[in-house]
Amino acid sequence: MEDHVQFSTFFYPRSIAVIGVSPDKNNLGQNIVRNCLSFCYEGEIFSVGLRKGVVFGQRIYQSLEEIDREIDLVAILTPAKTIPGILEQCGRKGVKNVVIESSGFSELGEEGKPLEIASLEIARKYGIRFIGPNGIGVTNLEVGVALPFMPLRADLALGPVSILAQSGGVGLSYLNFLADERVGINKFVSMGNKLNVDENDLLSYLIQDKGTKIILLYLEGFTNGRRFVEIASKSEKPILVYKSNRFEASARIAQSHTAALFADDKLVDYALEQAGCIRINTLDDAMDCIKSQTLPPLRGNRLAVVSRSGGHAVIAADACAYHGFKLAQLPDDFLRKFESHFRAHVIRLQNPLDLGDLFDLEFYEYIVEEMLKRDDVDGVLLGHGYRRGYEQEASRELLKTVEHLVEQYQKPVATFVLTEAAEKDYLKKTLKIPIFSAPENAMRALSLSYRWASQVSRLEDIPVPGGIDREKAKKIFGDSRNRSFLFLDESMELLASYGFSLLPYRLAKTSAEAIEVWKEMKHPLAMKINRPHISHKTDQGAVRLALNSEEEIT
Amino acid sequence: MEDHVQFSTFFYPRSIAVIGVSPDKNNLGQNIVRNCLSFCYEGEIFSVGLRKGVVFGQRIYQSLEEIDREIDLVAILTPAKTIPGILEQCGRKGVKNVVIESSGFSELGEEGKPLEIASLEIARKYGIRFIGPNGIGVTNLEVGVALPFMPLRADLALGPVSILAQSGGVGLSYLNFLADERVGINKFVSMGNKLNVDENDLLSYLIQDKGTKIILLYLEGFTNGRRFVEIASKSEKPILVYKSNRFEASARIAQSHTAALFADDKLVDYALEQAGCIRINTLDDAMDCIKSQTLPPLRGNRLAVVSRSGGHAVIAADACAYHGFKLAQLPDDFLRKFESHFRAHVIRLQNPLDLGDLFDLEFYEYIVEEMLKRDDVDGVLLGHGYRRGYEQEASRELLKTVEHLVEQYQKPVATFVLTEAAEKDYLKKTLKIPIFSAPENAMRALSLSYRWASQVSRLEDIPVPGGIDREKAKKIFGDSRNRSFLFLDESMELLASYGFSLLPYRLAKTSAEAIEVWKEMKHPLAMKINRPHISHKTDQGAVRLALNSEEEIT
Repeated sequence: MEDHVQFSTFFYPRSIAVIGVSPDKNNLGQNIVRNCLSFCYEGEIFSVGLRKGVVFGQRIYQSLEEIDREIDLVAILTPAKTIPGILEQCGRKGVKNVVIESSGFSELGEEGKPLEIASLEIARKYGIRFIGPNGIGVTNLEVGVALPFMPLRADLALGPVSILAQSGGVGLSYLNFLADERVGINKFVSMGNKLNVDENDLLSYLIQDKGTKIILLYLEGFTNGRRFVEIASKSEKPILVYKSNRFEASARIAQSHTAALFADDKLVDYALEQAGCIRINTLDDAMDCIKSQTLPPLRGNRLAVVSRSGGHAVIAADACAYHGFKLAQLPDDFLRKFESHFRAHVIRLQNPLDLGDLFDLEFYEYIVEEMLKRDDVDGVLLGHGYRRGYEQEASRELLKTVEHLVEQYQKPVATFVLTEAAEKDYLKKTLKIPIFSAPENAMRALSLSYRWASQVSRLEDIPVPGGIDREKAKKIFGDSRNRSFLFLDESMELLASYGFSLLPYRLAKTSAEAIEVWKEMKHPLAMKINRPHISHKTDQGAVRLALNSEEEIT
Repeated sequence: MEDHVQFSTFFYPRSIAVIGVSPDKNNLGQNIVRNCLSFCYEGEIFSVGLRKGVVFGQRIYQSLEEIDREIDLVAILTPAKTIPGILEQCGRKGVKNVVIESSGFSELGEEGKPLEIASLEIARKYGIRFIGPNGIGVTNLEVGVALPFMPLRADLALGPVSILAQSGGVGLSYLNFLADERVGINKFVSMGNKLNVDENDLLSYLIQDKGTKIILLYLEGFTNGRRFVEIASKSEKPILVYKSNRFEASARIAQSHTAALFADDKLVDYALEQAGCIRINTLDDAMDCIKSQTLPPLRGNRLAVVSRSGGHAVIAADACAYHGFKLAQLPDDFLRKFESHFRAHVIRLQNPLDLGDLFDLEFYEYIVEEMLKRDDVDGVLLGHGYRRGYEQEASRELLKTVEHLVEQYQKPVATFVLTEAAEKDYLKKTLKIPIFSAPENAMRALSLSYRWASQVSRLEDIPVPGGIDREKAKKIFGDSRNRSFLFLDESMELLASYGFSLLPYRLAKTSAEAIEVWKEMKHPLAMKINRPHISHKTDQGAVRLALNSEEEIT
């Protein structure tokens, strides 16, 4: 809780000093001040830099000490080697929250290390928490804090999504995509090298942050996976995780994949599932998933599909089956209520309901509401299509009503609208419910929403297996640091140190030794070749099972 | 070839008569005429309808006979019951090509059948080929033929993609998506009930059609799958197939899936692979795939990745590995050529190449060209990002140059650009190369392109198994029409009729009969319960193997 108080200053500072501002036209520090001004930050902003001058009608201070006001937050964009000195200044000034955007630390190799150690040391001395280095800082649209050193686009809207990104570029691209989709943003942190503040600190904060309703993480690695799982699994907010760096080829050295690395990504999968997070692997997934989270959760798997085009009803039914949803079985007498509105009984009354023949858009609203009222319908997939200038007003009216119905019945209506991009953009801008491009996208979004809703309930507490000897495990990893593999006995000890019970084993260097072992064990043996560089042992006949005689063993 | 001459009249008629036009404001027939006028159709258009009047400055004729000119193509939108009569008029007038957009045929049930039979009969008598009924007809942007009965958006551009769709709604939605992506359209046919002209006829035509470079099919069922495979496998143009109706739930009756239906979709998969088609299952895939086809094909699997954001380089490397591509191994001396341009050696020279530190966009062009020159690089993934108004001109210049490089080296550069939607739209409008949203999309597009390029070569001829008795197979299906399953002996005969060699089998109704069979066969038996409604037989213990004694059998 203590922590949350200090962290809230990153997002709600009463005053900000930006260090690294100069009157030079191309000075990047100026962009930090400009962004805060554009997003109407309400506190005081002070510019600090070596050269005198005026920016945005305000003098540039030559040091923090010159400022005779209290500073809540300092953002720094100066060369790496100046950082420890500036942190020292911050400490003396009583500043507890710092954002370091400068690069030139350990991301460039060993030379950056000493600067990092010095910075951490000073931070500890003064009780400073700092975000970065090598990032683009903190943004909080609630109060206009906007510290990236590149100009942010002006049409970022305030909304439910907060983003933690280990890459400034990827974070920015998400701001872009969300803005294009007209989904509002709450907070955004580019975590950079995560030297002092990591994703776990920030995730803890966002989980209890009022403005944040949906959390999106972009990570290339976990600082502490176990802690992440502990924190994330307690979240009542959906956490979407885009974890890249999944294959060895992505981890700098272009090599063919090893089984170990595959397992690694599977482990990430497993951990994220344990943590109740939604893992996303593509931008399209991410956007559909975020959009789905702006709807009430889907609490069951029975859907009703209502579409204006027969073909899209078929596609929707396919997607429904593909994602494991059920088409709710609607009773005949219920469907017959709709019959009178259709011309000459040309429509089959069923689920999916194909409304191709119906031009009375108000009756659409009635149908959607009747579907939502039913206990055996957990959500609706609605497809509509129109042209700008044709049925435009009635269609916008319809979708506005659907928005109200979603609010009223607290069930999701995933809506795809087939119309021009410009009209879709208008709808996205004016409606609170998301608009999807196609039934496949809407259904995928429902599927991700459902997966999350069903995870939440069963994640109260995760059993932690007892008897774990972390020190021993650490030693094993330490000893093997310069190899890309573990020796057999290291693997076995590692498993044992995490509480796995193992069958007895021995290393035999000759057939004679193997036979000794067999006699000693008094059981049939499984034999396996012990060579680190033969990795697919079974394929190569290097694993033999159930050997129970001298001939079989030799 | 004869056929192609007649079919070309659907797309290049010298004159069109539209039957079903009235002076009424809400008359849909008028939209057909309006579309042709909007898209500047150059031939004569005649409106025909029962009521006299004037539309678009032209009198409405009361019958085809009144028109004293030759008519190449007739489009009909009148009630179903009038169709045979109108076809008769067409025949007498010497019209050989008709598009029937009216609905009310077999899609509404048995009542429509006699009208279909009558229509087919008249068509045969006069040598008429007709498209439809129950569709929205033919569009050919090359010459402004545009027969849909709803107003088409005006910004459809002429280009390489032709579409055959079994659903007018889905076809229209593809026109929309392509227009939004600024991908040009060549021809579009809504095939409706495919009564006289089916996808095979039209596919044959498009394969030899000059203007068509990429073919997209939306199908809910194949008229004749074998013929489809024969035709498609000879295509030198990429054929993308979106085949819906994949699960039983999609096929009207909501039931749980049966193994048979799963197999069915697998069969479609297999057939499409045999045919050298690219199967797509979502809108996103379809769009990325079509976009990739506007690039030269990717002829090998070694890629170079050049990105302006480190995070996106990691994501690109992930996607590269995920799709089975290799990152080309670029020699050190090659990479070192780039070194001088980077500030203070802060960038690792490797593939993926992270250009975050490089602000000289002309040097980007140099790097891309150097990559394309290499024999060990089959394609490039290029990532760029900028803000509108910042580096805008230089960025547009860079992308224009990339377009030329692609043309010059005939290798694909899949380009993702991180910028505002409006800027992306500008790029899509002005560039011939596709612009992708994210590395994942660009890589998926390359993957689809590569799959197609590698299929083309090995599809010269497909062996057709001999000894197929189609008549027998037809009879079996005919007999079982009113059941949702085949009896055991029907299944076995069906397999035999397609040339499968079967083990001998018998139906035993009692244990005693089973023992008789065993004695007669003189071999161990496999026994299986014969009940059509027990579908997962193995799960329920209803299959027993290797029975070789009286006790085991009873």
